Amino acid sequence: MKIVALAGGVGGAKLAHGLAQILPPENLTIIVNTGDDFEYLGLKISPDLDTVCYTLAGLANPLTGWGRANETWQTFENIKKLGGQTWFQLGDRDLGTHLERTYRLKKGAPLSNITRDFCKAWGVEHPILPMTDDPVYTMVNTREQGELPFQEYFVHQRCEPTVSGFRFAGVEKARPAKGVLEAINNADAVVICPSNPWVSIDPIITVAGIKSACETKVVVAISPIIGGKAVKGPAAKMYRELGIQPSALAVAKHYEGLLDAFIFDQVDEVLKDEIALLDIKTLITNSIMKNSDERKRLAKDVLKFVHTLF
Amino acid sequence: MKIVALAGGVGGAKLAHGLAQILPPENLTIIVNTGDDFEYLGLKISPDLDTVCYTLAGLANPLTGWGRANETWQTFENIKKLGGQTWFQLGDRDLGTHLERTYRLKKGAPLSNITRDFCKAWGVEHPILPMTDDPVYTMVNTREQGELPFQEYFVHQRCEPTVSGFRFAGVEKARPAKGVLEAINNADAVVICPSNPWVSIDPIITVAGIKSACETKVVVAISPIIGGKAVKGPAAKMYRELGIQPSALAVAKHYEGLLDAFIFDQVDEVLKDEIALLDIKTLITNSIMKNSDERKRLAKDVLKFVHTLF
Repeated sequence: MKIVALAGGVGGAKLAHGLAQILPPENLTIIVNTGDDFEYLGLKISPDLDTVCYTLAGLANPLTGWGRANETWQTFENIKKLGGQTWFQLGDRDLGTHLERTYRLKKGAPLSNITRDFCKAWGVEHPILPMTDDPVYTMVNTREQGELPFQEYFVHQRCEPTVSGFRFAGVEKARPAKGVLEAINNADAVVICPSNPWVSIDPIITVAGIKSACETKVVVAISPIIGGKAVKGPAAKMYRELGIQPSALAVAKHYEGLLDAFIFDQVDEVLKDEIALLDIKTLITNSIMKNSDERKRLAKDVLKFVHTLF
Repeated sequence: MKIVALAGGVGGAKLAHGLAQILPPENLTIIVNTGDDFEYLGLKISPDLDTVCYTLAGLANPLTGWGRANETWQTFENIKKLGGQTWFQLGDRDLGTHLERTYRLKKGAPLSNITRDFCKAWGVEHPILPMTDDPVYTMVNTREQGELPFQEYFVHQRCEPTVSGFRFAGVEKARPAKGVLEAINNADAVVICPSNPWVSIDPIITVAGIKSACETKVVVAISPIIGGKAVKGPAAKMYRELGIQPSALAVAKHYEGLLDAFIFDQVDEVLKDEIALLDIKTLITNSIMKNSDERKRLAKDVLKFVHTLF
């Protein structure tokens, strides 16, 4: 069975890693959000792409989920000393990725080629594709400060401003990266990883052609909201600020029309009947992934469930 | 007594550091070659400027003379793994300097302002000025490969090609950086540090106005050639390849017309009479600087000698 996984940052990377432990490279393609990408200190940063690549390469920091394991911070200590910006932390190992990527992008290489080459160097065999090679910037509309670039909202201001909406600047001109539509068209099913629906998955499916390609496939999403809370990140806060009670149900409704099936955590069993009203199949399981084995276990549950959907 | 020192990389930085140990900040300005500057991995690198700043800040690697002490190499290990360029080694601490400088240059700040701010952050009180804020690129003409950018010749090809000449690309449009001419005009004497005459000092005095400003002052040079050899770097090899026997005499002749006095090492005492024929005063001393105390000792000798020249 061929699977395409749509992923954002840490949560998405974890399930993608679980799937990659089971499926051979030819049966799994991971399509990653690049709406979080931004320029910082003159470097082109692709946070979600790096998190997914580092996680699959076994290079990710196990404590934070993002950045590199065994990281050092010498470069940033000097920049701090010089009075430079340090609100977005880049470790020394991680910086090599940004420097080399920025250098190649400026020479004209597409992000998807660079990602393919980096993955090869890191020993990642499963294809990891940015959603697009074109610039798309997630903008967060806030009540207090108007529109903020995503990382300004997310990292610099620690998600404190009140969200009133989102815009994916440039998405109307963006085309899916080479291989994205082919991967979806060749897949049997699309798995929407437990990533933030608003800022991790929506940017991906807003790129022209991706949503409609997904719609021809069996699509299953895993809720990133468990017991009304996000495992990590601001998803629950965003739902609340947008006037929606954060829950697995809210996530299922978010993707309504696209989903054939939905997976949510056992702590949310009480929502089962309401979710079933959306006319989608459901699987209730333990969706917490605390370690590599739990990623694999959830991925197994997902794949077993997907098999029942045909 | 107010001194302006002209300096290139390691040798110049050592004497500048010696002078800075004796003279208060208001009595010493160091003007540094930027002809070695280049762009690498998208970063603006100023090798001589950094060597002088790091040396005066006490941050320089005592073993190499360039780069930072207690350096680590994590960023470059990742870049190497990714198949990127690593022929010019940049340590993690050092990289902070290049990242922050590149970022500020791209925002439009002049190199001289950036250098002033960095020096302040590093606790360097003596003014260190780039010769110019404009782009000047030392090009090395070689018999085998034609013209090579300086760092390509110097670092990438380890000075192996045979030199047939030099060109300071852009120098005809370059103006001295803010403060350079003022410092020379306000000085009592100009000290040409024991740096490579061809590629460290010549670029400085080729910038419009610098040589003629120096000519109105007492000028003394210290030979970087000792016993026919360069303490460090390709100066002796360059002299040979240009058909000139490398010696303190050759250095004195190099600066003929500009110099009032010349300092060379005791091992070259035999050259005394020939050098005196150039109608300049001479001081013979121990010009090797193996540690901080020896830098100070040579600086003392230089200053004592300069006093006798008025």
